[in-house]
Amino acid sequence: MAKTNAGNFFEDYTLGQVLEHATPRTVSGGERALYTALYPARHALYSSDKFAQASGLHASPLDDLIAFHTVFGKTVPDISLNAVANLGYAEGRFHVPVWPGDTLRSRSEVIGLKQNSNGKSGVVYVRTEGLNQHGTVVLDYVRWVMVRKGNLDAPAPETTIPELATVVDSEALFVPEGLDFSHYDFGLAGEPHRWGDYEVGEVIDHVDGVTLEEAEHMMATRLWQNTAKVHFDATFRPDGQRLIYGGHIISLARALSFNGLANAQMIAGINAGAHANPAFAGDTVKAWSEVLGKAETGAPGVGALRLRLVATKGSPAGALCGDDGRYLPEVLLDLDYWALMPL
Amino acid sequence: MAKTNAGNFFEDYTLGQVLEHATPRTVSGGERALYTALYPARHALYSSDKFAQASGLHASPLDDLIAFHTVFGKTVPDISLNAVANLGYAEGRFHVPVWPGDTLRSRSEVIGLKQNSNGKSGVVYVRTEGLNQHGTVVLDYVRWVMVRKGNLDAPAPETTIPELATVVDSEALFVPEGLDFSHYDFGLAGEPHRWGDYEVGEVIDHVDGVTLEEAEHMMATRLWQNTAKVHFDATFRPDGQRLIYGGHIISLARALSFNGLANAQMIAGINAGAHANPAFAGDTVKAWSEVLGKAETGAPGVGALRLRLVATKGSPAGALCGDDGRYLPEVLLDLDYWALMPL
Amino acid sequence: MAKTNAGNFFEDYTLGQVLEHATPRTVSGGERALYTALYPARHALYSSDKFAQASGLHASPLDDLIAFHTVFGKTVPDISLNAVANLGYAEGRFHVPVWPGDTLRSRSEVIGLKQNSNGKSGVVYVRTEGLNQHGTVVLDYVRWVMVRKGNLDAPAPETTIPELATVVDSEALFVPEGLDFSHYDFGLAGEPHRWGDYEVGEVIDHVDGVTLEEAEHMMATRLWQNTAKVHFDATFRPDGQRLIYGGHIISLARALSFNGLANAQMIAGINAGAHANPAFAGDTVKAWSEVLGKAETGAPGVGALRLRLVATKGSPAGALCGDDGRYLPEVLLDLDYWALMPL
Repeated sequence: MAKTNAGNFFEDYTLGQVLEHATPRTVSGGERALYTALYPARHALYSSDKFAQASGLHASPLDDLIAFHTVFGKTVPDISLNAVANLGYAEGRFHVPVWPGDTLRSRSEVIGLKQNSNGKSGVVYVRTEGLNQHGTVVLDYVRWVMVRKGNLDAPAPETTIPELATVVDSEALFVPEGLDFSHYDFGLAGEPHRWGDYEVGEVIDHVDGVTLEEAEHMMATRLWQNTAKVHFDATFRPDGQRLIYGGHIISLARALSFNGLANAQMIAGINAGAHANPAFAGDTVKAWSEVLGKAETGAPGVGALRLRLVATKGSPAGALCGDDGRYLPEVLLDLDYWALMPL
Repeated sequence: MAKTNAGNFFEDYTLGQVLEHATPRTVSGGERALYTALYPARHALYSSDKFAQASGLHASPLDDLIAFHTVFGKTVPDISLNAVANLGYAEGRFHVPVWPGDTLRSRSEVIGLKQNSNGKSGVVYVRTEGLNQHGTVVLDYVRWVMVRKGNLDAPAPETTIPELATVVDSEALFVPEGLDFSHYDFGLAGEPHRWGDYEVGEVIDHVDGVTLEEAEHMMATRLWQNTAKVHFDATFRPDGQRLIYGGHIISLARALSFNGLANAQMIAGINAGAHANPAFAGDTVKAWSEVLGKAETGAPGVGALRLRLVATKGSPAGALCGDDGRYLPEVLLDLDYWALMPL
Repeated sequence: MAKTNAGNFFEDYTLGQVLEHATPRTVSGGERALYTALYPARHALYSSDKFAQASGLHASPLDDLIAFHTVFGKTVPDISLNAVANLGYAEGRFHVPVWPGDTLRSRSEVIGLKQNSNGKSGVVYVRTEGLNQHGTVVLDYVRWVMVRKGNLDAPAPETTIPELATVVDSEALFVPEGLDFSHYDFGLAGEPHRWGDYEVGEVIDHVDGVTLEEAEHMMATRLWQNTAKVHFDATFRPDGQRLIYGGHIISLARALSFNGLANAQMIAGINAGAHANPAFAGDTVKAWSEVLGKAETGAPGVGALRLRLVATKGSPAGALCGDDGRYLPEVLLDLDYWALMPL
């Protein structure tokens, strides 16, 4: 009997199936320091206990993307070991912050299945929850991936495509308990721009660029215990290149967006996301954002901004698709998310 | 008077000599996070406080190899600065776990000496102990290294070769106080295979590969305060290559072995070890294991598995030596150790 | 209205102006572990809680250069985003140690201005303070940078060049409260040489070398939230090279100086500093020190040593300038500092 995990193939999934993912993880200030070393992260709420306390929290939480990547990483051995492509995200919400000392685990439910017409692969939709040591959901999101079939003769499942919201309703966003931006220090945060200063349609070029390194993306990806071979083994792809984990680009772009969106402190929701093109070591990544929407929240001094965050290796700010309606070849990431900002 | 440490030469060692090594070290969650970033480490007991508590420990200990490398690193300035080769390990035992906040130091006793027939070098055998802040031994092991003579005219010492066990008696292994695998969660641990599922002689191909990077092996080696020049200085060897610390390969192979040995949670003993060939940046490392033996322990639900862990940069699983009885050129590591597993 | 920070230009500074820098930062054992992974740091006081306690401190502080880089990094967006060159340091003093859990912020006052005769740039002198969560100054220093003018037509400010001490008076150095080297363990510290063993004029070759990697200098520079583009973006300079943050070389040289100055435990003052030439990935850095002075302190068993620390990528120990009085092209750093040592 083979002891190694070959991963699940398309025919291994059934609608309603629940996967309790392995490797619970206790996170600490070590993960925070590494995150700061790997990305130009400067949002004050995630950098300073004092700033977080002045914002009504008991301490500085770990970056929302530390939580996201940790939860996501646990799903890889069960969901995406035989994935051909990571197709999309929807309905992501951050329920409660993750604090140093928390222990996270992940659980996914299969909510949709559709075999491709070629009979060789299919699309699996899962809703994944991250839970802390109290059993509280810290975040959840839907993602869908194209997965190879292991046995081409396996029968196709009944097609079920879940109805997914194109955007998380701003009313459904969670604001961390106690969060209060009424006495927000814009000087310490690094920029004067408040929620009211942003207009729908506004495009912000984040200006700075970072050239990707093999050691950095591999350390980042391992930090989340993401085990997909393609990120680590230069002999795995015919071209000898290691494909960079899409989450590395999300974190890099989000950190770069500080320059122009320093006050978009917390990620509250993920509406949609596409890894438009692969990234490789040597690419220099820049980012731009577009304001897609605005909403109020019930919390004191806290507004929500809906943002498109685009990572690119060359196209100018604002350029997303070509005449054919497809992503430009330089576009790496198109992420639609909700951020919490001071009013 | 020269202030720098030229290291000890073969003639500087005497039988029974005790070396108290420098640079005591307090370890924390920072070392744990870095270990996870540097190696694909996923053993649940070292990842989650909750999992460790469910196994009878008060918290998740630091990886046994964090303890080993930290203790080993301290010996380098006194033992292996003038070493030609690291020849072997024996009689390694892990006495008590190392916890975040512990302070480690190292002490070695010279237990054997043998000058080589060429008169230019000799073999030094040391038994090294790592101690925590309470003075408790956390681990000990024997290693022997070939060390250059500084003064070729120095007289040869009397030859003393210690009698070393070829395998640590399973009765002599320490099981951490309180360890109890009776209620082990195989789902959270990542694989269903228990002690009873492994057979002596069984070979497990761990499948995954990792391509080595200069920045990663140097960060790892520095993390243990290992100062051997050959790992850091590209001008040191005539070929301009930085030799990778053998311990980096041990940790990499052990982490890769998760895939097939996810429940071989703790390292309890090191029976033998050989760094068969040098590794360099750009090499892609894979690993395989062979079950060499099985033993019971007195602890509830805890069995011991004796494993050969082999790291290779190309030879297939199971292939170790050529017709000449020597290691294949692709084999990097041959490590014989005891692991603790759920029954 | 542009939301991104274009940085300040020479004409934006006024004498007496106070800049409260953004991004307060809570530091932890994570930063310590990363520092150890990035530099061959081995000074026992910064490595071991036990050693620090035996020296009269309640725990091991974070390395003085962690404090320095963190404070410095915060000034970059306000001071050196449009800098042409980092010209010098003076009057640096370390007031109180920084402990894991502290939250640091930075504040600078403009103490001098001088427009260059070309009318295109000018020199800005700032005195920067780092403060902890109690509002206590942890360190302060003066630095001056050459900054581009944004508007060449802006009038030149009145020239004010501050009078700066060429060396921090040893009487003005702060010794951490409680520090006591009376019972110093030279064995654990790694070398037998005490304050009395060093003579003014003595030159120490630190022997070891480290080859620079892109991933390492970028991780280090990000860790201090230093955002200067030139360190991260390979497309920024015409030659396609990423300029290495001068502080990376300071930390590397200081850590290398352990070999010969293992007991120069704490940095108490920075008298002067010059980044003599730029460093790039692939360079192999070595270091040497010269004893420039000696002083006593009031603290039990604690002496002060004034040291010149030189980082070089090729010139021999002791070689600093050519016949023209300029730094040799291999010299990267010339730092003049005060260290605290056991008497």
